[in-house]
Amino acid sequence: MAIFTKQYHPPGTAPGTLSDLETTESIEYRISLINFSDTYFEEIKVDKVEKCRAFLKQPEITWIHIQGQPTPQILHEFATLFEIHPLALEDIHNTGQRPKIESYDNQLFTIINLPIFVDDSIISEQISIFAGSDYVISFHMSEKDSFEPIRKRLRKHSGKIRSRNVDYLLYSLLDIIIDEGFPVLETFGEKIDTLEEELLEKPTNNTLKKLHNLKRELLILRRMLWPHRDLLNKLLRDESNLINDDTTIYLRDCYDHTVQIMDLMETYRDMTASMLDLYLSSISYKLNDVMRVLTVISTIFIPLTFIVGVYGMNFSVNTKSSWAMPELHWEYGYPILWIFMSGIALGMLIFFKRKGWF
Amino acid sequence: MAIFTKQYHPPGTAPGTLSDLETTESIEYRISLINFSDTYFEEIKVDKVEKCRAFLKQPEITWIHIQGQPTPQILHEFATLFEIHPLALEDIHNTGQRPKIESYDNQLFTIINLPIFVDDSIISEQISIFAGSDYVISFHMSEKDSFEPIRKRLRKHSGKIRSRNVDYLLYSLLDIIIDEGFPVLETFGEKIDTLEEELLEKPTNNTLKKLHNLKRELLILRRMLWPHRDLLNKLLRDESNLINDDTTIYLRDCYDHTVQIMDLMETYRDMTASMLDLYLSSISYKLNDVMRVLTVISTIFIPLTFIVGVYGMNFSVNTKSSWAMPELHWEYGYPILWIFMSGIALGMLIFFKRKGWF
Amino acid sequence: MAIFTKQYHPPGTAPGTLSDLETTESIEYRISLINFSDTYFEEIKVDKVEKCRAFLKQPEITWIHIQGQPTPQILHEFATLFEIHPLALEDIHNTGQRPKIESYDNQLFTIINLPIFVDDSIISEQISIFAGSDYVISFHMSEKDSFEPIRKRLRKHSGKIRSRNVDYLLYSLLDIIIDEGFPVLETFGEKIDTLEEELLEKPTNNTLKKLHNLKRELLILRRMLWPHRDLLNKLLRDESNLINDDTTIYLRDCYDHTVQIMDLMETYRDMTASMLDLYLSSISYKLNDVMRVLTVISTIFIPLTFIVGVYGMNFSVNTKSSWAMPELHWEYGYPILWIFMSGIALGMLIFFKRKGWF
Amino acid sequence: MAIFTKQYHPPGTAPGTLSDLETTESIEYRISLINFSDTYFEEIKVDKVEKCRAFLKQPEITWIHIQGQPTPQILHEFATLFEIHPLALEDIHNTGQRPKIESYDNQLFTIINLPIFVDDSIISEQISIFAGSDYVISFHMSEKDSFEPIRKRLRKHSGKIRSRNVDYLLYSLLDIIIDEGFPVLETFGEKIDTLEEELLEKPTNNTLKKLHNLKRELLILRRMLWPHRDLLNKLLRDESNLINDDTTIYLRDCYDHTVQIMDLMETYRDMTASMLDLYLSSISYKLNDVMRVLTVISTIFIPLTFIVGVYGMNFSVNTKSSWAMPELHWEYGYPILWIFMSGIALGMLIFFKRKGWF
Amino acid sequence: MAIFTKQYHPPGTAPGTLSDLETTESIEYRISLINFSDTYFEEIKVDKVEKCRAFLKQPEITWIHIQGQPTPQILHEFATLFEIHPLALEDIHNTGQRPKIESYDNQLFTIINLPIFVDDSIISEQISIFAGSDYVISFHMSEKDSFEPIRKRLRKHSGKIRSRNVDYLLYSLLDIIIDEGFPVLETFGEKIDTLEEELLEKPTNNTLKKLHNLKRELLILRRMLWPHRDLLNKLLRDESNLINDDTTIYLRDCYDHTVQIMDLMETYRDMTASMLDLYLSSISYKLNDVMRVLTVISTIFIPLTFIVGVYGMNFSVNTKSSWAMPELHWEYGYPILWIFMSGIALGMLIFFKRKGWF
Repeated sequence: MAIFTKQYHPPGTAPGTLSDLETTESIEYRISLINFSDTYFEEIKVDKVEKCRAFLKQPEITWIHIQGQPTPQILHEFATLFEIHPLALEDIHNTGQRPKIESYDNQLFTIINLPIFVDDSIISEQISIFAGSDYVISFHMSEKDSFEPIRKRLRKHSGKIRSRNVDYLLYSLLDIIIDEGFPVLETFGEKIDTLEEELLEKPTNNTLKKLHNLKRELLILRRMLWPHRDLLNKLLRDESNLINDDTTIYLRDCYDHTVQIMDLMETYRDMTASMLDLYLSSISYKLNDVMRVLTVISTIFIPLTFIVGVYGMNFSVNTKSSWAMPELHWEYGYPILWIFMSGIALGMLIFFKRKGWF
Repeated sequence: MAIFTKQYHPPGTAPGTLSDLETTESIEYRISLINFSDTYFEEIKVDKVEKCRAFLKQPEITWIHIQGQPTPQILHEFATLFEIHPLALEDIHNTGQRPKIESYDNQLFTIINLPIFVDDSIISEQISIFAGSDYVISFHMSEKDSFEPIRKRLRKHSGKIRSRNVDYLLYSLLDIIIDEGFPVLETFGEKIDTLEEELLEKPTNNTLKKLHNLKRELLILRRMLWPHRDLLNKLLRDESNLINDDTTIYLRDCYDHTVQIMDLMETYRDMTASMLDLYLSSISYKLNDVMRVLTVISTIFIPLTFIVGVYGMNFSVNTKSSWAMPELHWEYGYPILWIFMSGIALGMLIFFKRKGWF
Repeated sequence: MAIFTKQYHPPGTAPGTLSDLETTESIEYRISLINFSDTYFEEIKVDKVEKCRAFLKQPEITWIHIQGQPTPQILHEFATLFEIHPLALEDIHNTGQRPKIESYDNQLFTIINLPIFVDDSIISEQISIFAGSDYVISFHMSEKDSFEPIRKRLRKHSGKIRSRNVDYLLYSLLDIIIDEGFPVLETFGEKIDTLEEELLEKPTNNTLKKLHNLKRELLILRRMLWPHRDLLNKLLRDESNLINDDTTIYLRDCYDHTVQIMDLMETYRDMTASMLDLYLSSISYKLNDVMRVLTVISTIFIPLTFIVGVYGMNFSVNTKSSWAMPELHWEYGYPILWIFMSGIALGMLIFFKRKGWF
Repeated sequence: MAIFTKQYHPPGTAPGTLSDLETTESIEYRISLINFSDTYFEEIKVDKVEKCRAFLKQPEITWIHIQGQPTPQILHEFATLFEIHPLALEDIHNTGQRPKIESYDNQLFTIINLPIFVDDSIISEQISIFAGSDYVISFHMSEKDSFEPIRKRLRKHSGKIRSRNVDYLLYSLLDIIIDEGFPVLETFGEKIDTLEEELLEKPTNNTLKKLHNLKRELLILRRMLWPHRDLLNKLLRDESNLINDDTTIYLRDCYDHTVQIMDLMETYRDMTASMLDLYLSSISYKLNDVMRVLTVISTIFIPLTFIVGVYGMNFSVNTKSSWAMPELHWEYGYPILWIFMSGIALGMLIFFKRKGWF
Repeated sequence: MAIFTKQYHPPGTAPGTLSDLETTESIEYRISLINFSDTYFEEIKVDKVEKCRAFLKQPEITWIHIQGQPTPQILHEFATLFEIHPLALEDIHNTGQRPKIESYDNQLFTIINLPIFVDDSIISEQISIFAGSDYVISFHMSEKDSFEPIRKRLRKHSGKIRSRNVDYLLYSLLDIIIDEGFPVLETFGEKIDTLEEELLEKPTNNTLKKLHNLKRELLILRRMLWPHRDLLNKLLRDESNLINDDTTIYLRDCYDHTVQIMDLMETYRDMTASMLDLYLSSISYKLNDVMRVLTVISTIFIPLTFIVGVYGMNFSVNTKSSWAMPELHWEYGYPILWIFMSGIALGMLIFFKRKGWF
């Protein structure tokens, strides 16, 4: 995943402008609408935004979900229908925003990041949620639909989701996105454990690159998920009368999850830092080991090689001078030399032993 | 201990769902009930949850402790009897939660971590405590019972525990769990001291791995115990009328213990960091030492070996040319060479001495 | 960009003194004035400060922009006309100030930094903005004009800028400067990505210098942009009645951008730190690799070279002593020696294999 | 000094239990009592706790100091006489507590650490002080009495100590203990300065161990003294009506000292960290230096040694083949070889010069 | 500059005691008095403290400045005359205090640090300022007078200093001291830039020592200047009615300067940290480079030297055995050997090329 993921207009563009996105391929959008109360349930596919208007006037809660990448035209139609603020519209359209919560009159606008694994590397997808007094609109610019479990619970009337208000639906949507952090972090934890074992057993340069990649992903994951805590904190302290008291308990549970996710990411960060230290120290230790072997062998044999080199000289070959290497003519010259050389080697070994080199 | 220890439902599961845990082996549960007041004491083993109902109506304080892993069925029965919130129930069932305190109407729900040594490595066990106006329910999903000293004090009527209210019982339970941190940290401190000595005397690659393990354990221990301070702080500031003023002094003492435990963990963290630095610097220093020996020996003998190699050449053997190694024919060629070589060696030694290499 | 960029008077100079700047070359200044309301638009080039006086009494909003470096004389004339505080005047004149917001009676004075790339390295330019009840004066001591998009929007009556008050114009000016951070950080992110690839593939000493330069630029960029968050926070909390409620939403959006910019800079900082670790570990690993090859080759051949040196000695040449290297006279001496040496080499290889060196 | 110094009861012990301390040797205790007012002074040695009772009823201020290690029995007698809370009693008895201030009804209980040098290494001693409306009780479980200067001032009626209230006596006791930090930190600073010089001149492995010890001591010292700031802050904000307004100024001075001590400890910490960096970099630089010498010498002589080795081969000795080392038969073979070898050596030197290796 | 610079009395000394300072040489003191109002100006040298008394009763503002080191006697006379608190007196006398602001009834006491360069290294001098309703007393225990510019402005009636109150004079004194930080930090910045260039071009062990010294100075400078921000913050929030509203703007400007100075010091700190990293990595890279050259040369020539050593053996000299080095007798033995050795060298080169070693 690239470090810089924010989509933005050229500076100076009027707020609320929706330029065409230069994404490589556009993702086809589909709009689903669910209208429900404790006793009523209706689910339709919407092809025209205008169709949603009718549901707004009904007493039931309406949840409109736009999966995929709608055109600026469609977004403008939604904005007109639901009186969406131009700045919010721009944030929905230009993904890569920082998670945040913003309250416009009687509306709560939430941007939240969904972390998912694509090809073994973590990416983040922006989900934008609008909550009014009796409707929720959610935008998810991706192929994969994450809200199916909620829809199932709505259809089956399981749990309390049908009998509660808009705030509980908002909580359910936020909760599912935040909880997606746990499987992602579990996989991440397993990766760290695997790498740690590799590090302790046989570290290679490749291990290092894997470690660097983990740190990089963690860094980006942290930037993506960190603001969720503030988001939920703001939601809990929110003065808008959208959140009921009995939903607060659920949101506090959700808040605890964001704290736990942050704790985990901090632990992972410290773990990867500690693993890098382990790698570096390990490498240093091994280098030391290698050098000790080289030094012991070299310092023993280099002087010996010099000595045998001396007696390979040809001084005595052509001269009869008694100064010319008389040792060569001694009766016991050769064995004496061996004794002498063994003495040097032994002395060296004792010296190294004392130094504690082996 | 694995880094990721939280048990969780698939994202999107309705809150309060209790799925079967995929733990390798289930731990048989046993329920003990103590009913006491200053003048009354009754202790029974409970086999059916229904049996607890009778005690709730009595004026005495009832403490129900569930040791081991109860089935979801049992948990649901407790939930019904004591009106436990589904979210709390889920947190009791899915262990590995972050320590926290949560107040539901007239009930205080506490999750706290007990650090224990298993096979010389630290693990953490979750203990969940429910405190109502005249009852305390505690869950501990483990074999080992940690609350026996409290039970003894209750039976013997020692200290003030029998004459106080529910809040003092809650304090006693929290206090014993938090104080278990001290022996754990004392053992940890001894491990650090032992390792430090090993580092200063004869560090090996194994020392490094031990150090890494200490850092890892400390990291996880920190994540487990850090939230206890906030927990107690919240309990002290709590507006629920469960905590009486004279128990506050005891809770403040307990709070001081959590701070002291955090102080210790910080010191340990800094110590392990400093020890790693010591290891790395030590290794570097030794490498330097090794290399200096190699270099001194090599740079002295390599030129000398070259010189004796020169006079081992066979130029003078086959030619009578006066240009062919006339040195070999000199009367004092051999001793002159020795003087020359000694001069080189001496020069080198002086050079190294000046560099301060030995 | 130099680390120290602040221009200052000698300590003890009376506040509000405007000394001549010792910049190498002065930048010619030009003053543009725009007078506008929802229904009216006038744009003129101003050559004398006095000319501005007439516009102040009119009900329209007046925006005076001074591009380039005005003389102290001109500044004093503006100060007199708009009752600018001497301290503010000094800050406009001595660029390199810390971004800040200051409210003088009925006036808001803002200093903000514009980050731009000059010759592939980031520099920062100070923009000073004065906002009164119906006028805005902006100073930008540089050649390049950054506010042209605003002027275009004013001329074309696009967006809401013409129908809003002074606070919206102030927001628009701040917004364009802060948003200039995004393209700068995007370029920065690409530089980091490129360098990371270079690091992973073929790191050289030059890579290291590039990395150091990135860190340096990031450090300075951080110092320049960090105070923007506080600035906007202060503006949002400001009690001056200059900021209307419906502009607050826009300023909050602007505030979010400063937070996102800080998040990005933090991520970049951590990335560059991680990249340095990668570099160092990589270098260490390679050194280890190099040393292993050297050691394996050396320790195999050094003893062998000693052995063949032994049999190059001339003991047997001149003596008939039976102690003088009898091995040379053996029938199978030469092949036996080869077998012996092969044995040593093989033993060494097995030893290194076991050590896991190749 | 060991890292873990806290004395604690087994978890689950009832609060206020005083078990026998397992210290290696007990320190005999002595109790001194001073009863004073502006006009009155009486100093006695107390052998029975009961004797103190009489003084409590008198209007003068009574200061009881227990130097050494009293038995649990004695402590209980004091507790009964002065209505000391069991938790406070336990903290007095089990030394190694975190410095803190606690207010029980009309009583202020303070635990504070006194840093002293014993055998050139810093240890900390706990001093516990109880302040009531007209008495102060202080406990110091050590041989050495630190409060003698206060006693002298009381006897001589020097300064204002006799004419002030209990709060000023409490301040005087705290002040003397906190100020003991300055000579300790001065000595520490001198140690750092000495070690820094050693590092810059001739660092050895021993220097490293000294540095590690300094860091260790600093770490423990920090844990001991850090809480003093909070303690004084709490005392300053205290709502108990024990502290008069004119004593606040003195306590604020005392508070400033704790801040200055923390500043110094932070500086020391950064200094030791910087010194370790210096050590490591210094070692690396020297290693580089050593390796450069080895490499220059080796790479010049190794090829030359090969060449002279070539002409030491015996091909021409036994054969008459004209392919067998004809160079040996050339008239100028030997001098040509020297010229050739000098050329190689010169080339190498130029190569190294260009690389900037010497 | 030493790390520990605080002067202190032995712990337990009564507050306000002025012992003789053990500074190596005392600095002669001189007292100057300026009495001024908008219309009046008088400047005299004072030889007796008593002379100041007359000016106190006059309506003009009196500024008494004591340059150099007054005797305890003189200090006591000032204390009596101006009702200076003993603790403040002690702080004036014992220099090396932490910058702070303290308000005694109707008096503001300020301690502030002046950073100056002495012999190319930074030291700090303590300046103590007392401000009452119509007088200011300043103490500067140093030779060099820093307040001359203020005096000039007072004499020339330049700026507003003569027409304002005591608070503006206090601001002017603080401002000049704080602003002295800018030239000091500018020089520091230049030192860092110079060192950075040295590091990038030709780092030596001396560069490292210079870097360490910079870090050390920065550390001490930070401790000296850091509290200035809090000091000014306290002054701005001060409830004493000494500071008028229109002076607050000036103090806020002064506050901004302290923040900017802190920003600069943080940037410098990060820069020096980054430079150390650059140094270490650079050294590591160069070591790698050196080792690669050594390894390539060694591993090519060591096997070749072994081979020529083999054919320098004397097996064939004395024996006629057909097993004794028959290669020497081959017609093309010598050229075949050269081809063989060239093959080995070429193989090695290809191997190293593939490893990417050159």
